[in-house]
Amino acid sequence: MLRLSQLFVRTLREDPSDAEVPSHRLLVRAGYIRRAAPGGYTWLPLGWRVLRRVEAIVREEMDAMGAQEVHFPALLPRDVYEQTNRWNEYGDNLFRLVDRKGADYLLGPTHEEMFTLRVKDLYSSYPDLPVSLYQIQTKYRDEARPRAGLLRGREFLMKDSYSFDIDGAGLKKSYDDHRDAYERIFRRLHLPYVIVKAMSGAMGGSVSEEFLAPIEAGEDTFVRCTSCDYAANTEAVATGSLEPDSVGHPATTEVVTPGCGTIASLVDFLNANNPRPDRPWGASDTLKNVVLSLRHPDGSRETVVIGVPGDREVDLKRVEAQVSPAEVEPLDEAGFAAHPRLVRGYIGPQVLGAASAAGIRYLLDPNVVPGSAWVTGANRADTHVLHLVNGRDFSCDGEIEAVEVRAGDPCPVCSRPVEIARGIEIGHVFQLGRLYADKLGLQVLDQNGKQVTVTMGSYGIGVSRAVASIAEVFNDELGLKWPRAVAPADVHVVVTGKNDDAITQAAEALARDLESRGLEVLIDDRNGVSPGVKFKDAELIGIPTIVVVGKSLADGNVEVRDRHAGTNTAVAVGEAAEAVVALSRG
Amino acid sequence: MLRLSQLFVRTLREDPSDAEVPSHRLLVRAGYIRRAAPGGYTWLPLGWRVLRRVEAIVREEMDAMGAQEVHFPALLPRDVYEQTNRWNEYGDNLFRLVDRKGADYLLGPTHEEMFTLRVKDLYSSYPDLPVSLYQIQTKYRDEARPRAGLLRGREFLMKDSYSFDIDGAGLKKSYDDHRDAYERIFRRLHLPYVIVKAMSGAMGGSVSEEFLAPIEAGEDTFVRCTSCDYAANTEAVATGSLEPDSVGHPATTEVVTPGCGTIASLVDFLNANNPRPDRPWGASDTLKNVVLSLRHPDGSRETVVIGVPGDREVDLKRVEAQVSPAEVEPLDEAGFAAHPRLVRGYIGPQVLGAASAAGIRYLLDPNVVPGSAWVTGANRADTHVLHLVNGRDFSCDGEIEAVEVRAGDPCPVCSRPVEIARGIEIGHVFQLGRLYADKLGLQVLDQNGKQVTVTMGSYGIGVSRAVASIAEVFNDELGLKWPRAVAPADVHVVVTGKNDDAITQAAEALARDLESRGLEVLIDDRNGVSPGVKFKDAELIGIPTIVVVGKSLADGNVEVRDRHAGTNTAVAVGEAAEAVVALSRG
Repeated sequence: MLRLSQLFVRTLREDPSDAEVPSHRLLVRAGYIRRAAPGGYTWLPLGWRVLRRVEAIVREEMDAMGAQEVHFPALLPRDVYEQTNRWNEYGDNLFRLVDRKGADYLLGPTHEEMFTLRVKDLYSSYPDLPVSLYQIQTKYRDEARPRAGLLRGREFLMKDSYSFDIDGAGLKKSYDDHRDAYERIFRRLHLPYVIVKAMSGAMGGSVSEEFLAPIEAGEDTFVRCTSCDYAANTEAVATGSLEPDSVGHPATTEVVTPGCGTIASLVDFLNANNPRPDRPWGASDTLKNVVLSLRHPDGSRETVVIGVPGDREVDLKRVEAQVSPAEVEPLDEAGFAAHPRLVRGYIGPQVLGAASAAGIRYLLDPNVVPGSAWVTGANRADTHVLHLVNGRDFSCDGEIEAVEVRAGDPCPVCSRPVEIARGIEIGHVFQLGRLYADKLGLQVLDQNGKQVTVTMGSYGIGVSRAVASIAEVFNDELGLKWPRAVAPADVHVVVTGKNDDAITQAAEALARDLESRGLEVLIDDRNGVSPGVKFKDAELIGIPTIVVVGKSLADGNVEVRDRHAGTNTAVAVGEAAEAVVALSRG
Repeated sequence: MLRLSQLFVRTLREDPSDAEVPSHRLLVRAGYIRRAAPGGYTWLPLGWRVLRRVEAIVREEMDAMGAQEVHFPALLPRDVYEQTNRWNEYGDNLFRLVDRKGADYLLGPTHEEMFTLRVKDLYSSYPDLPVSLYQIQTKYRDEARPRAGLLRGREFLMKDSYSFDIDGAGLKKSYDDHRDAYERIFRRLHLPYVIVKAMSGAMGGSVSEEFLAPIEAGEDTFVRCTSCDYAANTEAVATGSLEPDSVGHPATTEVVTPGCGTIASLVDFLNANNPRPDRPWGASDTLKNVVLSLRHPDGSRETVVIGVPGDREVDLKRVEAQVSPAEVEPLDEAGFAAHPRLVRGYIGPQVLGAASAAGIRYLLDPNVVPGSAWVTGANRADTHVLHLVNGRDFSCDGEIEAVEVRAGDPCPVCSRPVEIARGIEIGHVFQLGRLYADKLGLQVLDQNGKQVTVTMGSYGIGVSRAVASIAEVFNDELGLKWPRAVAPADVHVVVTGKNDDAITQAAEALARDLESRGLEVLIDDRNGVSPGVKFKDAELIGIPTIVVVGKSLADGNVEVRDRHAGTNTAVAVGEAAEAVVALSRG
């Protein structure tokens, strides 16, 4: 039995000043976690109980699908991650350190290399496969912006697993098994989820899906088709090649456009001074050239220009997903100073391209379709060009999915409008293929006695993040409302009496009775704390069933409150235990 | 059911070349662990099961004594450890790193600071205390010499707990409660232990005891009195002040002793050329001055000379325990070159001392009692001095317990002879007192409304080390022999038949029967593996009960082998399950 008089917990009346999202605010206020370091949290007893219940559900389902649990160190030698180039590719996201002998180490952000090498060590032949291995282990990533409490930390608990198969069909099955197990896990955790197409990021590989919990506090944006079953992280949305524009266009014309350094001023100027015959000029007639700086893992920088329709913004996360492991930011003042050919506000593709004098790579979003005509900068101040045609008057070094995806954009599959929502990544399943096995030489003998390279999958669930995601979904203005499957206790008994009076004795007896029926009981047996404060704490802590033993005991009743239903029922004290058990088994 | 045909395990016939001790050798050979990094090990499924069983026993007993489980990050900010000076005092043993923003971090070797600050955050008044908090968490120490597999690693699993009390009586009770819980834990783990007095090391504080498992592979040496109940780590043995020598001694005499740079040659020379009237000279008449270099945590070095009787060695671990956090090594060539006054082989205390021209601190072992006379160097080559009296002809800057303790030495309590053994530290209990609370400002209001500083204890169990210690105790020439309480399974069923024959069917049926009776079953269902190899693997893996379903099934029997008793009993197949359950329930 947990006794609030002794439990290492203190609730806070005020929101912590650094907490932006409900889960962070409430988990701190209710005494589940406390900040210990930037992106690092201490689990207090109540929080630790929830984490362990989530962990147990993950473990049960992983075991049930036949995956085997192992455990690797977090402190790993550099050489292994050098062989796959991830020592460099992870860039600043990797925590690196040097030991007393001067050897380089890292804190594992994920363990593909280690699992691959261990399978290579133990296994050598086709009957050994398939095998799926997992661990539930603390991971480290030096996030640029740790935020939102447990939602994006630098030290966090993760379940990572890896499948090893002899061929693609095997990988497909291992992948599907993991995907199914993940669906069972998130259902048991009562976490709503959407499965979306995902980018591979720094992981390499091909097919990849994310489980996103649709939560406003999430950092991911995803699209979902209103008609078909298409769903994707916006990073992974592929507009694809659009129909080329085959309309004939007039020859290019230069126009003096004084003070038209913005799209809006340019459009106004043209409508006033160079009206189109057919319709007014719009922002979508202009070609916006956005200058970015790529930072490659070796530290080198590259300036790149991306052309998009002027009515669209560039989505840096989408761009970054495609140029990974490079990181992306807008070119800064010093960068522009180094490129005098780039006339801010008047940049046009005429002087761009890897083969041009400037030598700056020029990429186009697919919305700038071949054959289409644009208004764009003339690379001189106060001057623009009309009717510049893609393919006739300028070219690019490649395509890149760059524009911000919007609600109402056509679905890449069925062309009906998509909707957009935010979510938090709670799981990721990934067909890695032979990338790691190739680099690390993981081969086995096949049935014909030939060495074949093993094909792999990698799969992750953020266990500590799942706790925060559940808190994000299950709360109200009063506090947390845990699903019964993960609550830190089954029932919270509030005693409003004083030392050893009839109320206290009845409450203690009821608590013992509940415990003897297999329930986990938290009892608020604090002396000198008012009933009002106890009720507030009970609501804040969010155990799904609250039993109040108080004044109504005079009528032979206790109150049974269902935190989810919001109901408050008077129950005869002799029937209370049974009623609570029924609710809890619910 | 665990199936060897699918389990991620491979046994090795040969000992791994880097394994010196039985636990390391056998845990690797039997497929429980694999080396992943210097001092870092991967737990394979069998090893992970044992570790989790050990962890569960530790958790149960900690919960039973009323300690509350929490969990802190391993990646911790520097500033907290600066406040107690441990950022420096830990020296090279601390893994330090810098994050992407240039901030300093460490990987926690132990968490006194973090727990102290958390209690300070949550608690403020005497009714809040006592409280005992614990975590079972991965710890990091950059050991100079990681060795012996799990016995001394750089990344390891530890249960660390901390008690907080308002006064010394409370601390004593919290300490005793932990000590009792530790006794219960080690008894349940079947780990033999001796409780010995210990030094405080880098932890500060006062009363401290270690739980040592008496294992030859251990790194600790402890003494135990043959008569009274005195037991201590040799580091912590205090010879204490001996009776001063009040015999009158002749005046000092210089003797030319050509080529007598060693104690033995000196004693021989004196007996030949300067014989004593009463008895021959012995090594114990000579004063040996050992030159050491202390490395302080700030990196500075200090030369120190320690005087001990010539028949004794200096025990560097004992010295180090007393000069901690400084590290100790013999002075090297360059060090001697920097001190021309130190004439190797002929060093005497006449030129030593902090106040001397050399300015070198001179410390004496208590065995060099005040008033006693010695033969020692004259600080010139080929010259010694006779009858140099401690206190008359030389003095020291302090005492230090420096000599190697030997079997037969007098017990510090009762003066009877002690015996000496080796052990591995499996637990440590520690009355820290107010050291950390003072430095970090942990105070609470007492009953009189006054702020008082909290007094603390800290307590540790090496969970991963306990696994190795158990393996160290329970093995024979065939392999491991796990105690039932921590074995990776209850019973190992060896099937010597082939696919789907009667033997295989009977074995599978028996395994299912055992599982339905609540036992954890490992079944060796591998095809194409000979019975001999299967038997060898079963013995190596060391599950306490082995059931062989094989040829004797023709007579209606299976063989039940008890790995501990070494017995091998034919049991009718219909009675086998019951017999195995009886064995397993012990």
